[in-house]
Amino acid sequence: MPINIIKVGGAVVEDAQMRGKLLKAFSSMPGDKVLVHGGGRTATAVAARLGIETRMAEGRRITDAAMLEVVTMVYGGLVNRRIVAELQSLGVNAAGIAGADFGCIKAHKRPAGAVDYGFVGDVDSVDAGAFSLLLESGVVPVVAPLSFDPSCGLLNTNADTIATSVALALASAGDADVTLTFCFEKKGVLANPDDEDSVIPEITPESYARLKDSGIVSGGMIPKLDNAFGAIRGGVRRVVITDAANLGTASGTSITGNQDK
Amino acid sequence: MPINIIKVGGAVVEDAQMRGKLLKAFSSMPGDKVLVHGGGRTATAVAARLGIETRMAEGRRITDAAMLEVVTMVYGGLVNRRIVAELQSLGVNAAGIAGADFGCIKAHKRPAGAVDYGFVGDVDSVDAGAFSLLLESGVVPVVAPLSFDPSCGLLNTNADTIATSVALALASAGDADVTLTFCFEKKGVLANPDDEDSVIPEITPESYARLKDSGIVSGGMIPKLDNAFGAIRGGVRRVVITDAANLGTASGTSITGNQDK
Repeated sequence: MPINIIKVGGAVVEDAQMRGKLLKAFSSMPGDKVLVHGGGRTATAVAARLGIETRMAEGRRITDAAMLEVVTMVYGGLVNRRIVAELQSLGVNAAGIAGADFGCIKAHKRPAGAVDYGFVGDVDSVDAGAFSLLLESGVVPVVAPLSFDPSCGLLNTNADTIATSVALALASAGDADVTLTFCFEKKGVLANPDDEDSVIPEITPESYARLKDSGIVSGGMIPKLDNAFGAIRGGVRRVVITDAANLGTASGTSITGNQDK
Repeated sequence: MPINIIKVGGAVVEDAQMRGKLLKAFSSMPGDKVLVHGGGRTATAVAARLGIETRMAEGRRITDAAMLEVVTMVYGGLVNRRIVAELQSLGVNAAGIAGADFGCIKAHKRPAGAVDYGFVGDVDSVDAGAFSLLLESGVVPVVAPLSFDPSCGLLNTNADTIATSVALALASAGDADVTLTFCFEKKGVLANPDDEDSVIPEITPESYARLKDSGIVSGGMIPKLDNAFGAIRGGVRRVVITDAANLGTASGTSITGNQDK
């Protein structure tokens, strides 16, 4: 059974026009699907209006008690509820999930190391059964980047991590054919960063090694691709990196295991 | 099949200690149950921190676009997600619903009359099937006071109205034995407003007429009881008015139809 897990970043879901295009494309995708969204820019903006300073470390949000309230309101409330409402208006029977709903995204509070990230969760398990219940009933889960620790409550969790964890759980549960798609601002992984149309259509473990050696793939793309290959090793059939405009089309960069070469 | 619909007001769910007691009592209630919550005080407080003025007319919130964002964040995010997380920690498999999820609380934007309430929804229909799907799977719905108009999105809706609409829909769907409980700050309907222990244990349509004639029931209690008898006429078996401390016990005021006298 093919299942599409689509992760969209904050920049796409926070702009009404881009969100509209994305959700229209998403609503047209056939079969079982899950949408995972970010919302960091809105969280930063709402925090500023509330007089709460946003502090980041290595690109990740430091989440004290006040910031946990902000992300619960913004990710779990404003962004998630609005996406669900817009999908319902498009005829998609969506339902929002934010951390604790159905107990389906369990995590533990990250221990303080060199940086104390505060109320940030590292995912321990995703209950594929809860997702299956919804999907089998024709419901499309819309997942906010929050997780849940039974002993300390809601936790802030990176949306890429949530999407990957959901994809891995669904891939492990039976013989599902899971595709994990990351929608970002580029059309895919570019062979030439100055040429938006130089999308590399497919990357396998072997071609990835060559792309790294030659320096074509570098910088922030390396952790993204390492994460993608981790998902492939965990049983996800295909990881796609594309932009919102091309969601559901054959374009973008497809990351596959060797067997798909 | 007995189903309990419990409505708790903002004052109860917004205070951590009272909320803790309420959710513990709620978690111990056997059988199928639904929790509907308010959150108005937090919405007013968050709005004030964001520099947004709260305007009320006849006790109801006027909801312009900025206030709709606030109630979406507060009711649909902070309050709803926190209750779900705390219930999960108590071993209750809760899931949040806020307006558009599962398309289950459909409404239309109230036309502007003498007062333009803005983005406020009058409920048209509740999809009992969505609630049944969750209840049959052992999931406890936690419902925020938001509804959904497919043509204009999320709408703010009074929590008493949501609770009554859900109870009526479930009572109409098959032969469910539905009890609707309103938890508020008093132990029940009082025979003497100065005596907290003068709870009237039962009110029937006949005794209600006498209580009104004698002036024992007056003021703001009349619309509450009219609403309760409306629910009874619509097929709800019993309406209970009680306080959070006595939830799930036999105390409080029970409003029933004549057949139960």
